Amino acid sequence: MNTIYEDDSLALHTDLYQINMAESYWDDNVHNRKAVFEVYFRRLPFGNGYGIFAGLERVIHYLENFHFTESDITYLRDVLGYKDDFLEYLSGVRFTGNVYSVQEGEMVFGNEPILRVEAPLAEAQLIETAILNIVNYQTLIATKAARIKQVVGKDTVMEFGTRRAHELDAAIWGTRAAYIGGFHATSNVRAGKLFGIPVSGTHAHAFVQAYKDEYVAFHKYAQRHKDCVFLVDTYDTLKSGVPNAIKVAKELGDKINFKGIRLDSGDLAYLSKEARKMLDNAGFYDTKIIASNDLDEATIINLKSQGAKIDTWGIGTKLITAYDQPALGAVYKLASIEDENGNMVDTIKISGNPEKVSTPGLKKVYRIINTLNHKSEGDYITLQHEEPEEEEKLKMFHPIHTFISKFVTNFTAKDLHHQIFHQGNLVYQTPTLQEMQAYTSENLDLLWDEYKRALHPEEYPVDLSQKCWENKMKNIEEVKEKVAEMILKTKNEKRSF
Amino acid sequence: MNTIYEDDSLALHTDLYQINMAESYWDDNVHNRKAVFEVYFRRLPFGNGYGIFAGLERVIHYLENFHFTESDITYLRDVLGYKDDFLEYLSGVRFTGNVYSVQEGEMVFGNEPILRVEAPLAEAQLIETAILNIVNYQTLIATKAARIKQVVGKDTVMEFGTRRAHELDAAIWGTRAAYIGGFHATSNVRAGKLFGIPVSGTHAHAFVQAYKDEYVAFHKYAQRHKDCVFLVDTYDTLKSGVPNAIKVAKELGDKINFKGIRLDSGDLAYLSKEARKMLDNAGFYDTKIIASNDLDEATIINLKSQGAKIDTWGIGTKLITAYDQPALGAVYKLASIEDENGNMVDTIKISGNPEKVSTPGLKKVYRIINTLNHKSEGDYITLQHEEPEEEEKLKMFHPIHTFISKFVTNFTAKDLHHQIFHQGNLVYQTPTLQEMQAYTSENLDLLWDEYKRALHPEEYPVDLSQKCWENKMKNIEEVKEKVAEMILKTKNEKRSF
Repeated sequence: MNTIYEDDSLALHTDLYQINMAESYWDDNVHNRKAVFEVYFRRLPFGNGYGIFAGLERVIHYLENFHFTESDITYLRDVLGYKDDFLEYLSGVRFTGNVYSVQEGEMVFGNEPILRVEAPLAEAQLIETAILNIVNYQTLIATKAARIKQVVGKDTVMEFGTRRAHELDAAIWGTRAAYIGGFHATSNVRAGKLFGIPVSGTHAHAFVQAYKDEYVAFHKYAQRHKDCVFLVDTYDTLKSGVPNAIKVAKELGDKINFKGIRLDSGDLAYLSKEARKMLDNAGFYDTKIIASNDLDEATIINLKSQGAKIDTWGIGTKLITAYDQPALGAVYKLASIEDENGNMVDTIKISGNPEKVSTPGLKKVYRIINTLNHKSEGDYITLQHEEPEEEEKLKMFHPIHTFISKFVTNFTAKDLHHQIFHQGNLVYQTPTLQEMQAYTSENLDLLWDEYKRALHPEEYPVDLSQKCWENKMKNIEEVKEKVAEMILKTKNEKRSF
Repeated sequence: MNTIYEDDSLALHTDLYQINMAESYWDDNVHNRKAVFEVYFRRLPFGNGYGIFAGLERVIHYLENFHFTESDITYLRDVLGYKDDFLEYLSGVRFTGNVYSVQEGEMVFGNEPILRVEAPLAEAQLIETAILNIVNYQTLIATKAARIKQVVGKDTVMEFGTRRAHELDAAIWGTRAAYIGGFHATSNVRAGKLFGIPVSGTHAHAFVQAYKDEYVAFHKYAQRHKDCVFLVDTYDTLKSGVPNAIKVAKELGDKINFKGIRLDSGDLAYLSKEARKMLDNAGFYDTKIIASNDLDEATIINLKSQGAKIDTWGIGTKLITAYDQPALGAVYKLASIEDENGNMVDTIKISGNPEKVSTPGLKKVYRIINTLNHKSEGDYITLQHEEPEEEEKLKMFHPIHTFISKFVTNFTAKDLHHQIFHQGNLVYQTPTLQEMQAYTSENLDLLWDEYKRALHPEEYPVDLSQKCWENKMKNIEEVKEKVAEMILKTKNEKRSF
């Protein structure tokens, strides 16, 4: 590669302003003040009724290895001109804070803290960009996958998108996220090797082209592969592909398992129904039909409504790129910071848009589960020391439209945050990927179907506790006063401009 | 990480079917037959009139290092059940073929071969997925960047999207592609370190929140950073942010360079105009206004039409995810293959859709440049041994609507393909990133403005030579005959089903 410096660290995988801020904090000797940052997104992607969190494992790996290498420091000094005093500090930085997070496979919703960092201010700032980069993408894909999984029902669904993924990392971490969301297999062999995801695939059009004869090509494939899936649309699906597949399977009899045929173009509803008849007429009742070609949840619903005879769905571009909404907007906001006297002081970010006003203070998220029907009543955000579990009845109200409220009795309040790091040490045992996938599935059982439908789902309640809400109002008032003071001051100084 | 095998190779960054096909080829002893595969996309993304190719450097690095490691082989045997005889072959595989490609920064169009692999069949198949994964994403982003660059004119434009990129690779390779497309800088420090891209950034909202006082925060920032850009929208842009920035700049006078203010929310047209007035009234005529917040070419055109006073554009999500069309559909199609007698035979992929029928044969692409006005007349695809440069006049005709044609005289025919690998050895000197960016820019000068406008550009001609077109028609006829034969055979055998 045409690179000057070795790619031996992810510490510089951050926005430049993080380093500039760290420098100012260090210069002002406030870099070690304790800061609390929370990760949350405002709106669910795809108009979906829930999100599925993913990305924690890579965040852990990143934080465990977080340090500036010699080549990082050299670059910062020689190219960007940072001074040695600051660089000396920077070269000693490790992650020494606490992290709390929901687990991978957890259902998550808008405006609730899904991951919290409590760390020295400068450290917490330096790690923001990479955390968002990882969590935004993986959560987006796990959510898309769960959404697709929801509409395929009990069919098999496989991730086939590597060639359209946004570069190499997205291919493997995206397919891992899809597996968490409920996908059964991937075509990416490296993802199989690294994560233990089942791998799936047969042959491509090029294979048929290389032999210039479909019948010969299928025979050649069957010669070495006992489990046969034949791709039947290289020349003409119903006139050539399916008949050739059946012919080869009949000729080879017990020597192969004629597992399936794959349709990769054309009218999948029509072709699958016709192909099913041809397979059944030939006695291949157990041979499956696999379909692919720019599929997503909308086309799947559509194909199913037309009675398409598809058993297995291969999903590429539309999943791995989250085609209809390719970004999740999770942010990382300062919720609280230590002042010069060592007290934690809450902070807020104001906006003209009420949904964009942050909620100050160190918070926890509880899932309020009705003990009678085992369905979730909503999520409940509290300040750190509240104990909703001990309340007899809980008042839940909408944080923007506060008149929407309900009282809940007979509930358990499940704390969604797990401690991941304690003072820089990993204290969390990551579940296996299989456990994460199972958790996603159990998790979704807590939701009424109305929250899970693909189109116009009901809005799941994510409510603030009374104390949390009052604290937010208090902070808003304080900022307003501060700005008013500022305006007054500016007015008085106008003449000097 | 929860992984069983070490991530020590990219050889398995491929779809499983590639390995299955390689196994069948090897089993059938045709794995070393020479095959020619071409990379091309059918349609330009974003409705743009041209594409900008990127990704070659990473493809080169991938091919140079292509081999299956011990852990790859172990995984393939122990988990996927491949047999030792094939694995022995696989562990010796290196890339030994030829690669021809257009250079990074080259203008590219639909249906022209942008990269060609000539290699032993099995090798050529194994490398398909990674090549497409890299080229599809990087070309997509370079194209989006060039498109945005086109509308900002002479303004500065910076890539700010890391936190919304699709995992880590996309952040750094995406910003590199954006630089090739004409962007001036990135916020990603690692991309700066690895690729030498200028890095840019100042401070975030959190910095103001951490000090709980905007005026104090700006002062603190200025204490260590002589070049100051202040983010002015944490509390209230016009009432607090801009006045505080001006106040601090006046107080500090020559001690700082008050380079700019950054607007990251709200009505950017209104705010920038008002802020400009305030800055000018205070004598800060050279202080720039930097804007960001979900910008893309459409919002930029719109802001400019409103007279927004924005000097520098920070582009995040919409660029790095290619938000409005997050996938380029480049494919890798077999164009020609050696037969059992050692002769090269052309191959074709048929489709019901005329645009999807591949063009057989080993081909070259020439850019036909009018020597009188130095504008491009179109691209001209020939079979390998044609010499368009030696023709006195060139007949160019539309490959689908063949009646659309023109004769060109006074032209040079520029061969767009460079040889990159010769028998597995790298024979290409990669230009610097700065040279690629300059090449993109010169390149675009060849196009009439009508091909470059953001909305409904004219269609640039990409035409086949007469020989190339005749060869395609011949191949289509041959396949039709073959399928007809097959149908006849199937009919005669119907009773046995």
